[in-house]
Amino acid sequence: MYPESLQALIDSFRRLPGVGLRTAERYALNVTDLPQEEIEAFASALMRVKETLHHCRVCGNLCDGEECSICRDASRNRRQIFVVQSAKDVMAMERTGEYRGVYHVLNGLISSSRGVMPEDLNIESLLARAKDCDEVILATSATMDGETTALYLDRLLKQSCPDILVTRIAHGLPAGGMLDYADEMTLSHALSDRRKM
Amino acid sequence: MYPESLQALIDSFRRLPGVGLRTAERYALNVTDLPQEEIEAFASALMRVKETLHHCRVCGNLCDGEECSICRDASRNRRQIFVVQSAKDVMAMERTGEYRGVYHVLNGLISSSRGVMPEDLNIESLLARAKDCDEVILATSATMDGETTALYLDRLLKQSCPDILVTRIAHGLPAGGMLDYADEMTLSHALSDRRKM
Repeated sequence: MYPESLQALIDSFRRLPGVGLRTAERYALNVTDLPQEEIEAFASALMRVKETLHHCRVCGNLCDGEECSICRDASRNRRQIFVVQSAKDVMAMERTGEYRGVYHVLNGLISSSRGVMPEDLNIESLLARAKDCDEVILATSATMDGETTALYLDRLLKQSCPDILVTRIAHGLPAGGMLDYADEMTLSHALSDRRKM
Repeated sequence: MYPESLQALIDSFRRLPGVGLRTAERYALNVTDLPQEEIEAFASALMRVKETLHHCRVCGNLCDGEECSICRDASRNRRQIFVVQSAKDVMAMERTGEYRGVYHVLNGLISSSRGVMPEDLNIESLLARAKDCDEVILATSATMDGETTALYLDRLLKQSCPDILVTRIAHGLPAGGMLDYADEMTLSHALSDRRKM
């Protein structure tokens, strides 16, 4: 129904997560109103991201070169590794400005329902890196797959490097969270992980 | 904080309507997982839409050539013109499959708040087309700007073609709409435009 060129763009937008027909139409029609140079910049950014973006060979984070900016930063503490599911989590943690160690990006979680096995993840190089460090912080999500992955990594790390400290990020009430709105699992974590004031 | 190539793509996605930082990040990271040929198709669709997409010289609808497929369709009734704000509205109406006349796309609405004047819209050619037709259906939205534009066009059309029938699409309760959820304006329209059963 739409002109062929517009339909092709709508189809491309629909490949994005959570974008249905209406949103894709809105995006595509909006693109037709953008100035020529912005559309060119958009198209070249798309092409470039596949060409130049790679996983850091040390930690698995996304980067333009061989190593990511965090692994290249000599001021970071290489003896502390923060293990996360994806590059997005690295950015989220970096925004806090509270962490000065390095990261390890698994690029996924072990998931029996989606058939993701440990060998599909960036785990082997974590074991190699862990040998030269003091602490591995397991920071996968507080979901079923996140917990499974954390338990698996904990066992593996303790087997291969018995002297290492393996920690798990705290679970509990989020900042601003109200007790009567929290679910049972969160409250149960908040109780069992309570600390002395 | 993100690699430069990824940041450029995030910035481009943020130019789309209603896309904030989180959504742009999600889109951009998702693009990195798409196969190469889909990214290429996306980029070329972006470039092509600006090159080949034009406004139909007859009705102002979006099309790949000189005239849109509806204006080229000899089976459509050219003596009935359905006036809408944008190409999206043409698609919405075509999806009903109930209308066999032609369209006229204003490409905007008169808006004092946003400084859009009648001369910024595709109005002149509507007056020329109206001379050879029986009915002009004003189908701008039931918003302040939509009503203003409809009133303005009604006056203009009656001046230049006194014999023409100018109609306005019906306002009232939407399909499935419940009376107690309808706002005052909708209910007031539903009452004043009531019809004999």
